Amino acid sequence: METLIKHKKENQIKEIQGNVCAPAGFMASGMHAGFKKKRKDLALIYSKKLSSTASVYTQNKVKGAPILVTKAHSINGRAQAIICNSGNANTCNANGEEIANEVCVLVGDALKIKKEDVLVASTGVIGQPLSIEPFKNGMSDLVEQLDEEGGSEAAQAILTTDTDIKEYAVEFELENATVRLGGISKGSGMIHPNMATMLGFITTDLAIEPELLQATLKEVVNNTFNMISVDGDTSTNDMVTILANGEAGNQQIQSEAEPDLQVFKEALYLVCKELAIAIAEDGEGASTLITCNVLEAADELQAKAVAKQVISSSLVKTAVYGRDANVGRLLCAIGYSDADFNYHNLDIYLRSENYQSICVCEEGSTVSFDEAKAFEILGTDRLSIDIYLYEGKSQATAWGCDLTYDYIKINSAYRT
Amino acid sequence: METLIKHKKENQIKEIQGNVCAPAGFMASGMHAGFKKKRKDLALIYSKKLSSTASVYTQNKVKGAPILVTKAHSINGRAQAIICNSGNANTCNANGEEIANEVCVLVGDALKIKKEDVLVASTGVIGQPLSIEPFKNGMSDLVEQLDEEGGSEAAQAILTTDTDIKEYAVEFELENATVRLGGISKGSGMIHPNMATMLGFITTDLAIEPELLQATLKEVVNNTFNMISVDGDTSTNDMVTILANGEAGNQQIQSEAEPDLQVFKEALYLVCKELAIAIAEDGEGASTLITCNVLEAADELQAKAVAKQVISSSLVKTAVYGRDANVGRLLCAIGYSDADFNYHNLDIYLRSENYQSICVCEEGSTVSFDEAKAFEILGTDRLSIDIYLYEGKSQATAWGCDLTYDYIKINSAYRT
Repeated sequence: METLIKHKKENQIKEIQGNVCAPAGFMASGMHAGFKKKRKDLALIYSKKLSSTASVYTQNKVKGAPILVTKAHSINGRAQAIICNSGNANTCNANGEEIANEVCVLVGDALKIKKEDVLVASTGVIGQPLSIEPFKNGMSDLVEQLDEEGGSEAAQAILTTDTDIKEYAVEFELENATVRLGGISKGSGMIHPNMATMLGFITTDLAIEPELLQATLKEVVNNTFNMISVDGDTSTNDMVTILANGEAGNQQIQSEAEPDLQVFKEALYLVCKELAIAIAEDGEGASTLITCNVLEAADELQAKAVAKQVISSSLVKTAVYGRDANVGRLLCAIGYSDADFNYHNLDIYLRSENYQSICVCEEGSTVSFDEAKAFEILGTDRLSIDIYLYEGKSQATAWGCDLTYDYIKINSAYRT
Repeated sequence: METLIKHKKENQIKEIQGNVCAPAGFMASGMHAGFKKKRKDLALIYSKKLSSTASVYTQNKVKGAPILVTKAHSINGRAQAIICNSGNANTCNANGEEIANEVCVLVGDALKIKKEDVLVASTGVIGQPLSIEPFKNGMSDLVEQLDEEGGSEAAQAILTTDTDIKEYAVEFELENATVRLGGISKGSGMIHPNMATMLGFITTDLAIEPELLQATLKEVVNNTFNMISVDGDTSTNDMVTILANGEAGNQQIQSEAEPDLQVFKEALYLVCKELAIAIAEDGEGASTLITCNVLEAADELQAKAVAKQVISSSLVKTAVYGRDANVGRLLCAIGYSDADFNYHNLDIYLRSENYQSICVCEEGSTVSFDEAKAFEILGTDRLSIDIYLYEGKSQATAWGCDLTYDYIKINSAYRT
């Protein structure tokens, strides 16, 4: 719950400037290699040390070739580099896996590491052949440009229809160690709850066992990247990957019970949440970030189902764009969520980023409200919809965006 | 399968002019009563004889008050009149059920029938109080205007954002009886597979047992009204209702085994299909009807899941609007359907209404195709997407429409 959850250890975790290069021992680079006409389209993230790694992948049954290769290369829980191109998803091609493997060989040779320690990702148009040539031509420059300040270049190179880079980093203290955690993400359309709906690359200098890293990533992603929706389309290629290289010098976290794991989990939640919100906020054509908080739910599943359905409804999304407090559409979307509940109990509030708030529905029925105030609240850049189910003590938050003319403009354009 | 199924008895069933007034013994009327500013907004369908009745309702957990009352009044399988207003859905109000009941009393008194033999429906904005006054003021005129030619007036009065009336009728021969079957429907936005996504009122002069009528309606609706999508939003108020008054003089159909039932089922399929397609084609802002045929599937569930997902994908819908043969988006949508299959087998064809056709995907990979021809095919008013799964002998068809600027225009407008 964005505004309502208090993180007990929040003081211990502080936001810092940066991205995948914030943790010690990481370098990155981004360049134009020729997959796109002009903009940067090839990114590399490199850890000086072999790292623990974990990933969460798309649930789409049509999976991009890079996902299959990354899965195979992650099987031992170790990796050292991530290569990602934009402009072509390398999916539904005749020789996609071959190309993805060849890319890892090129990176391995250039960095003098094993090809199995390279993870690969692609994003862009599906179903177009991907040429190996831009990788070949760009690789030596890409490696040469690796830099401890290169994270934003990499963040730039993984974008497709995104309007801006997405990066975030935090720092927290463990006994005898200062740990850093940073990430970059991309995603704008084809975004919907159900891992993985975009790309997220996260780095940390924490020392942690791969299996524990995997479990922690999965749990956090379910509450962050898996709680956003732009257009209901779940992509074929997307993943969230983390590298943990241990350079912070903490005693390696090896069990669920260690208090350090909780601190790390909270820090990872903050980073993933910010990177996920950045995607929802940058949804194709979006003008308003919609945060749906479901409160006093019977359990977390119920709260999540309602929150996701509200942010996914085309009619809610267009009403927000039109600044129309159309309560009926909210109730309708709540009603066709997968959750069971008695809608005769529920209250709904609309809230703007400066904490103006208005009640629009009480006990399942629309109440009369100040339409001018509602119009003003709906004009916010960051709208919250708070839904009280009064069935228990659980809660959940989902993030989406409004649906505008520009979504149509972007997606009806030829072969975006 | 729209173009591929051959109905053996099709010759026996012929299309005729008309609507709910085509069968013997039915009258209808439609008027402006004051729920909307100017246009007709109150419809009445009346059978001279008490009829068998059956209905299928929305699956939304938030249900309109009229649905609860219609359910209660249908419990004995008999009804004689249907009253429907547009402009206000009578849902999520404090006293919705009370109002819906009162409407039935007014109709019962005016027609001199029991209020329990009146079914009631409402469509329009959710969450606004519905006044009984327009019903009271309009009722005597509405009943006076009942006419055997009044079906189109009723079809007009149930519309909301629809651009045109939807009506269809057929005639078929049974031994010793000519039977007629006709209907009207409404729906444009808030349309998605999962009964019931709009209003459909169907009449027939067939004599049939209510339970058999219910089973037949449910089966047919699952292949017609439940296979269309406009925007993924399932409404709170929608239903398909049929009245069968027996005026055709056939021997009452009483068992599943009677051959007459099969003929009736085919006729009902034709009527429901046409009324459902009319809704998809008139989807808010739509310029192209999209028909997705899934062929050679392992079973019908698999075929339906794929077909529904393709017509529901925002990215497929915007690509069709942009006349972009974006195969990746098709594969992606197929991939996140609920169906299990091996996408490496599948072929995809695009086909225009004049039967021009182009193969865009073979064995799960994009093939090179004539882009100019694809652009031409995508410019059709009625586009078919044929997907061959090569897993068995089942097939299914779903209908949807493209996603255009006008969808945003219509739905961002204040309180549509």
